Amino acid sequence: MDFAQYFKGDSNAESDGLRELLEQVKTIRVLKGQVLQHSGDNQKHAYFVKRGLLRSFTTDDKGKQHIYMFAPEGWIISDIQSTAMQQPAVLTIDALEDSEVEVIRADIFEELVNKHMGSHPDFASLELHRLLRRLAVLQKRVLLLLSASATERYQEFVATYPNLQQRVSQRQIASYLGITPEALSRLRVEILKAERRT
Amino acid sequence: MDFAQYFKGDSNAESDGLRELLEQVKTIRVLKGQVLQHSGDNQKHAYFVKRGLLRSFTTDDKGKQHIYMFAPEGWIISDIQSTAMQQPAVLTIDALEDSEVEVIRADIFEELVNKHMGSHPDFASLELHRLLRRLAVLQKRVLLLLSASATERYQEFVATYPNLQQRVSQRQIASYLGITPEALSRLRVEILKAERRT
Repeated sequence: MDFAQYFKGDSNAESDGLRELLEQVKTIRVLKGQVLQHSGDNQKHAYFVKRGLLRSFTTDDKGKQHIYMFAPEGWIISDIQSTAMQQPAVLTIDALEDSEVEVIRADIFEELVNKHMGSHPDFASLELHRLLRRLAVLQKRVLLLLSASATERYQEFVATYPNLQQRVSQRQIASYLGITPEALSRLRVEILKAERRT
Repeated sequence: MDFAQYFKGDSNAESDGLRELLEQVKTIRVLKGQVLQHSGDNQKHAYFVKRGLLRSFTTDDKGKQHIYMFAPEGWIISDIQSTAMQQPAVLTIDALEDSEVEVIRADIFEELVNKHMGSHPDFASLELHRLLRRLAVLQKRVLLLLSASATERYQEFVATYPNLQQRVSQRQIASYLGITPEALSRLRVEILKAERRT
């Protein structure tokens, strides 16, 4: 899948203007470890992952990294706090694998959405639902961080990112879950034991 | 401010259809302690607070409450996870003060938005920005819970909810911040000391 397919979804949004804007979306190749956006940067892009794996994270006062999200194939990753609030990036975005990525400038995205909301009601409704679902996912993430046990957080990670356990390190999963690598290791042993019992 | 004013914002959205839908928004009075939505409920409403103070929270396995958000005057509170994902409510919503509240049915809200996105581009753009800002606020909340110290979380609470410190208990603030009441009490002493020094 590419960004144009993702963006249009099942809607029939199609016009010269749309094509023109979508042509401004560039595909780039990035190597494992390459940084696409540094925290503090002023450039504002969203990245659509065609192949590979990106990640966003923040670094605290003590230099510890906290992973905000992973973006495997078909996902979009950006720094909404920075684009919506017009402030410097708070997240660093880098590649965990060699990847092929479409770069969407924030202003292009807004123009795309604004232009096609008016003329294509089904597209407006699609976009609205996408945003509401994203809000729902974030509400869930906040509630998990506030109130869920390490085990529940881990199970939710597996449900959100099937097959990602093999592609990222235990340390990175722990950083995403907001628990220590030791706690993650303990709970994986517990889960394995429980699985063997059944 | 009421919901109609909030909804239309600076846009010139105005039509018979809009008025008709807004007429279905009912104002109710709720008493302190009254529950508007129980976790597990299937009713899906958003509540616009005209006067008073609402709160949403989840209860964990051990019976401990975790506050997702407060909604003072002019705020909207709902359970987006439940409305967007069509699942039973995960949050309980209750009143922390005697309040006057407008009740907006989720289907009415979607109809309002869908109907007026097409015909009023400025409204579509307003609504889009509102959703993006809400996403930004939630990203910030996740990052605070993942990586910020108790002091930073408290400072963000004060910035988000000016004047609310007087209206909610220390226990409730701690529950919102994801820290113990003891940790909150210690950090407030530290902040007071630091203020006295300057």
